[in-house]
Amino acid sequence: MKCYGVIMAGGGGTRFWPLSRQAVPKQLLNLSGKGLMINETIERITQVIREEDVFIVTNAAQARTMEDVVVPGVRRDHILVEPAGRNTAACVGYAAMEIVKKYGDGVMCTFAADHNIRQPEVFAGILRQAVQCVEEEDKLLTIGIAPSFPCTGYGYIRYDKNDRGQAKQVLEFKEKPDLETAREYVASGEYAWNSGMFVWKASTILKNFQTYLPEVYQCLTQIGEAMGTDREQEVIDRIYPRIPSISVDYGIMEKSPDVKVIHGEFGWSDVGSWDNMGVLHPEDDRGNVACGETVLLDTSGCVVYAGKKLVTTLGVEDLIIVETDDAIMVCAKDRAQDVKKIVETLKDKGMTEYL
Amino acid sequence: MKCYGVIMAGGGGTRFWPLSRQAVPKQLLNLSGKGLMINETIERITQVIREEDVFIVTNAAQARTMEDVVVPGVRRDHILVEPAGRNTAACVGYAAMEIVKKYGDGVMCTFAADHNIRQPEVFAGILRQAVQCVEEEDKLLTIGIAPSFPCTGYGYIRYDKNDRGQAKQVLEFKEKPDLETAREYVASGEYAWNSGMFVWKASTILKNFQTYLPEVYQCLTQIGEAMGTDREQEVIDRIYPRIPSISVDYGIMEKSPDVKVIHGEFGWSDVGSWDNMGVLHPEDDRGNVACGETVLLDTSGCVVYAGKKLVTTLGVEDLIIVETDDAIMVCAKDRAQDVKKIVETLKDKGMTEYL
Repeated sequence: MKCYGVIMAGGGGTRFWPLSRQAVPKQLLNLSGKGLMINETIERITQVIREEDVFIVTNAAQARTMEDVVVPGVRRDHILVEPAGRNTAACVGYAAMEIVKKYGDGVMCTFAADHNIRQPEVFAGILRQAVQCVEEEDKLLTIGIAPSFPCTGYGYIRYDKNDRGQAKQVLEFKEKPDLETAREYVASGEYAWNSGMFVWKASTILKNFQTYLPEVYQCLTQIGEAMGTDREQEVIDRIYPRIPSISVDYGIMEKSPDVKVIHGEFGWSDVGSWDNMGVLHPEDDRGNVACGETVLLDTSGCVVYAGKKLVTTLGVEDLIIVETDDAIMVCAKDRAQDVKKIVETLKDKGMTEYL
Repeated sequence: MKCYGVIMAGGGGTRFWPLSRQAVPKQLLNLSGKGLMINETIERITQVIREEDVFIVTNAAQARTMEDVVVPGVRRDHILVEPAGRNTAACVGYAAMEIVKKYGDGVMCTFAADHNIRQPEVFAGILRQAVQCVEEEDKLLTIGIAPSFPCTGYGYIRYDKNDRGQAKQVLEFKEKPDLETAREYVASGEYAWNSGMFVWKASTILKNFQTYLPEVYQCLTQIGEAMGTDREQEVIDRIYPRIPSISVDYGIMEKSPDVKVIHGEFGWSDVGSWDNMGVLHPEDDRGNVACGETVLLDTSGCVVYAGKKLVTTLGVEDLIIVETDDAIMVCAKDRAQDVKKIVETLKDKGMTEYL
């Protein structure tokens, strides 16, 4: 069976402000210094999936930039544009419907556009195994990450550790735990991190939509019927914004009994905010992560991103300092999750040039 | 007797880095948002002294910029250029010799180029009184500031509080005290802050050089003999760098019995470093001083100077954040005195474009 890659690239850009903006969200940033996250993702999955079989689901604000910057091998008619963000179920369903309508069916592998993977070759091996598992057994497969520490920032998946198959039966999805619970999870050996990477047949996930998310499925069917006709864009623009907003994890994966998990250890992380930059760049001996031209004196635990100017620090700790062409941000490291508050404030003040 | 103003404007630029640079030191900055400090100083003293009678002593690195930016009324041949910085005694002596050689004699009023005075009209009144005192009684007069709080950052002058004259006999100069000592000084009512502003006859200060700093005097005499001749520049370039480096406070004022102090209360301050910016700009209700385009969230006690970009902060306190065309600095407020360490580091690293 043919294998398709679907990259979910519709996320907004508030958590990496001022570097990320509405039209330039995280997936379009070069945080690693090696390339745009979207292109790193494509490069990673095209070890297994052909470039012409890659789909990108994005939104109207980013679509133009996306077309301009993604590697040329990705077909421009495989860049699917959501008229409105309706969470991951809608996004996954839209791509599945496109694959079924355009190509009949196929194994569909879904990825976030903005994750980091330190060992792409190991990842490719796991992805190959996952595709093979789905070809052999028609299940909903999620790629779980063997947890390397009791992380409170990720969701967890409990699985049947007595399952002798390569893909193991999932017993339960767990939201982000507190530290103590996370420690228990890791110690038990029954949990994997939920990476949000899925492998399934396009037709199978659509059947699951029909069962568990019938309202979403109805919308997808209407869109599917218009695909390839003159009405396609009109129907998408009309129907898509009405799709109930729900995540595929919550809407399907947590409900379906047919979910299995395949384990991987390939240095995965979701670089969700500025305080996680240590995942992408080595820390100095005082725990600072510095990109660009910097001079750090008596400075510890800081993340410093210098765009084009020199950034100097003296006697500070645990700060995030970001310099871009038009804005500087200095933020307490433990407030990294609140960077969106700055963006909201700028919006409220009508300073739209910075959004 | 004619009255001359001498502005000492040879200071370097390390404490206000990255705004101040070697060629653009503090006196050439517009920290108040109203004008360059040097021109604010000129404007202030020309309430009492004619503009054409103002001298500026500066150094070779700044001379060109100084000529370009000072108000046009200042005679360009009154901008005296030190071939090397040799502390305030040399600077004062050079100007005094120039006045004596060029104009015979005169009351010479000496000022720093980079002080701030909130009530310039009150200052002008005190300066007029000081000039009158010197005309009536040939003393070395210093303008003392009635201390408004136990500041540990200034030197103090103890005077005879039983002296009924307008200018009171000085008993002792005191270096910067610790907080407890400063409190005692203020409570005693016998101390004034040493503002470094002096009024005396040019001939009288030269006599004091002869008595208390004979080596300096000898150099000044050689320079004086060459003044107005073809050899002038050659002699200055050769002799000036050899003048012993000593302050006029330490070399003469602390030794001469002929020193008097005249009191003033006119909102004087020496904005010596970034942490003092509150003197020039109102603080917001969380104790922040912000210049330029800024958005400060959950931020307190910070000094934020935004040049041309937006500067945003979130969840930080007691920082100095400065944005300029080529460099950003983020510094703990209590390390403001150490900003020069950044400059030294840049020098050591050969990053001369930032000096």
